[in-house]
Amino acid sequence: MSAYPNAAATTADTAAESADPCCAAPLPVLGRDVTVPLVTGGEVTYAALDYAASAPALQRVWDDVAAYAPYYGSVHRGAGYLSQLSTDLFENSRATVAEFLDCRPGDQVVFTRSTTDSLNLLAATIPADCEVFVFETEHHASLLPWRDARVTYLNAPRTPEQAVATLERALADRTVTIEGGHGPALVCVTGASNVTGELWPVRELAAAAHAHGARIVLDAAQLAPHHPVSVRELDVDWVAFSGHKLYAPFGSGVLAGRADWLQDSEPYLAGGGASRKVARRADGGVDVEWHTTAARHEAGSPNVIGVYSIASACKALTEAGFDSLVAREQHLIAKVREGLAEVPEVRVLSLFGDDAPRVGVISFVVEGWNSSHFAAALSAEYGIGVRDGLFCAHPLVRTLLGSDPQDPGECGAPEAAPGERSLNAIRVSFGAGTPDEHVDRFVGAVKELVRDGAQWKYRTEDGRCVPDRG
Amino acid sequence: MSAYPNAAATTADTAAESADPCCAAPLPVLGRDVTVPLVTGGEVTYAALDYAASAPALQRVWDDVAAYAPYYGSVHRGAGYLSQLSTDLFENSRATVAEFLDCRPGDQVVFTRSTTDSLNLLAATIPADCEVFVFETEHHASLLPWRDARVTYLNAPRTPEQAVATLERALADRTVTIEGGHGPALVCVTGASNVTGELWPVRELAAAAHAHGARIVLDAAQLAPHHPVSVRELDVDWVAFSGHKLYAPFGSGVLAGRADWLQDSEPYLAGGGASRKVARRADGGVDVEWHTTAARHEAGSPNVIGVYSIASACKALTEAGFDSLVAREQHLIAKVREGLAEVPEVRVLSLFGDDAPRVGVISFVVEGWNSSHFAAALSAEYGIGVRDGLFCAHPLVRTLLGSDPQDPGECGAPEAAPGERSLNAIRVSFGAGTPDEHVDRFVGAVKELVRDGAQWKYRTEDGRCVPDRG
Repeated sequence: MSAYPNAAATTADTAAESADPCCAAPLPVLGRDVTVPLVTGGEVTYAALDYAASAPALQRVWDDVAAYAPYYGSVHRGAGYLSQLSTDLFENSRATVAEFLDCRPGDQVVFTRSTTDSLNLLAATIPADCEVFVFETEHHASLLPWRDARVTYLNAPRTPEQAVATLERALADRTVTIEGGHGPALVCVTGASNVTGELWPVRELAAAAHAHGARIVLDAAQLAPHHPVSVRELDVDWVAFSGHKLYAPFGSGVLAGRADWLQDSEPYLAGGGASRKVARRADGGVDVEWHTTAARHEAGSPNVIGVYSIASACKALTEAGFDSLVAREQHLIAKVREGLAEVPEVRVLSLFGDDAPRVGVISFVVEGWNSSHFAAALSAEYGIGVRDGLFCAHPLVRTLLGSDPQDPGECGAPEAAPGERSLNAIRVSFGAGTPDEHVDRFVGAVKELVRDGAQWKYRTEDGRCVPDRG
Repeated sequence: MSAYPNAAATTADTAAESADPCCAAPLPVLGRDVTVPLVTGGEVTYAALDYAASAPALQRVWDDVAAYAPYYGSVHRGAGYLSQLSTDLFENSRATVAEFLDCRPGDQVVFTRSTTDSLNLLAATIPADCEVFVFETEHHASLLPWRDARVTYLNAPRTPEQAVATLERALADRTVTIEGGHGPALVCVTGASNVTGELWPVRELAAAAHAHGARIVLDAAQLAPHHPVSVRELDVDWVAFSGHKLYAPFGSGVLAGRADWLQDSEPYLAGGGASRKVARRADGGVDVEWHTTAARHEAGSPNVIGVYSIASACKALTEAGFDSLVAREQHLIAKVREGLAEVPEVRVLSLFGDDAPRVGVISFVVEGWNSSHFAAALSAEYGIGVRDGLFCAHPLVRTLLGSDPQDPGECGAPEAAPGERSLNAIRVSFGAGTPDEHVDRFVGAVKELVRDGAQWKYRTEDGRCVPDRG
């Protein structure tokens, strides 16, 4: 059961069929040669294994931005050569993103600052009386924006099939009716979990939503960097993603999809760029006529460099080929999972089980270890950057850890005493720029730390876990 | 009458007193060597004279961004070296901006995406029943965000003194009372007009606001790139500005000022980063505890590069010294104004008159010319980038043009037939990176176009004015 057109490519089959795509080199990224000091002495190249938070910029993206930067000019309505060039670049970037997402005719691509911003924008456009359905397993960006709506939080499913069944039941049980029928409803679902990396059955959830007269928005923050996303094939109404997870960390994000709700609502921000005409009224007030294009929700000067960097990343990933990227990433995932499986003290967090298709995002705990100290040791003694905490998905992580899902943990690093059950987790994540050496070093470091312990002690100071020099 | 500590430096006095600061070189900016083709043949270096829309990046800002980019990492809660470095960079940037704005202890610096975003954020935090007072002369970013408030639009004043008197009268005439006294009120005022470049009497307006129990936010989008802005000395409650006008075009902006309204309101965006703790409730809902720092309004992964670029620009401008920058800019302003004064067909738009202190933003119309065609000719025949239109300040420009302020013009380029009164204007603007040659070329081009006419014909196609090859 998979919603992804290229699901086959996520299995070993494709790797066997193709000309050993696993051996394709990682895409060059900025920072690949950066060295960092070790607390134990010396320096190593930094192993950036926190892609799920923010990925390094692709070298290609940086080169494109650097080539454009001297030609940067104000977009829209500037009469100068560079303004017109920048305007073309901006609008062409919109077309590139629409193509990357395989949008339908009439879909709009709105540039935002991030996935969080995109989903808050969509939340501001939902019709009155709209019911929202969201799994409690979502990260906060997709869990929380629906503040003005009547929200139904769906319990964590333990299989993709259960997710679909849970959604179908909830949609069928809707109690709000308008003129004898169900009112508008929106389902928000993540494409790939930022905690477990597991893929959600987006196409099936979309079919369920539509069968019950609801719409669906796909949070592709963790999916788009790893898989082709086809709005058309998945049949989702909207999709949101962030540039900074797509190797384009210049402050822009995307909301793309159906124009109707977007255009039937008030502009997200009020200001120039969104306004077509403004005039004083005879009664002293002000009349505004707003744009009916994507510009309606893009008030203020657009982030041209941010937008162009996303378009550049879309092109770079498309040209590299997702078949090859997926195959290589699955090869890295297998290395990490097989390596961790050899350490009995390690427990990998999973909602859908070992066989679930997934992207390169793996969270785990280590018996007897405070996760923050473990992550700090990976950094200080091995030059490996991972993340510890609850990953802005508190209810999910608490469910997976077996701690009370109602216990409000902090986004930071709550600590367990040695020997206690972990209150937070460690997450390793990677992608198109990750060389084998990084995941090999990571697996080796986990084994060594569990076997030999850390060489230094660590303590938490100002919310940050640091080597204890005392 | 001036609200600016360094007002003296805006007069010719300082230039005479100091060691000829006008001859200080412009600050190096990206694109200073870019050449563009002329429709008349050949190429020239591009004269970027649309700083009021978006300024080129300072070379220093670009260099800082380029040096940092390989070290980019996820901020907040990443355990890796680059994450911690990036987090420090991000938070240090906040401190740099607070220092640049001379904030008070306890003020918060919130990073947004632009001035428009900053003012929309503030609009989302104003208390219930808050009245808002805004001059009709504001650009749309400060005119329009107050959608949920009771807004009083103040008529265009013709002197700074009249502005203060108008505001005082309006505040005194407030009719909304709460518990026998006036309810909360907010004044929003621009520091320097994006149309006339004229400085507004911010300190006096702030005093008037406070005397009447109101608060005031300064829109410093056009002021901060040209003048030091001291929150403390101007005694404003908040200040907003954009990176892209401050030589840092990487998608970030700032709202800085009093914490109380910011922290007493719902988070601007709902999502990770703004949330401290999230938990399911026993009744199936979700409880959220939000941050009480600036992070409350910064949900989603921060635009680290955008924020760092602003801090870099703040440092670069401070190190260059505003005395020197202001003196040089006033020298350029004098050149442009004196040059335009020699052309009887040119009418410079002004609200406060010739003697008003101003920044390098000058709008004008040319008798007998369609402004869009004039701007197109400046670009195509001289390689000069200016702007034509209504500059997202429709009521003001219509007032200054003498057209019906209630006539809703488009933000684009409404055209007058030859010989008719202009329906839009031309704006030239410049700043710290502008060499004398650019303004000299501009003045020469205006004179030549008015005297000899354009060499090509121009027509509007798809909303853009282009050379007419037909």
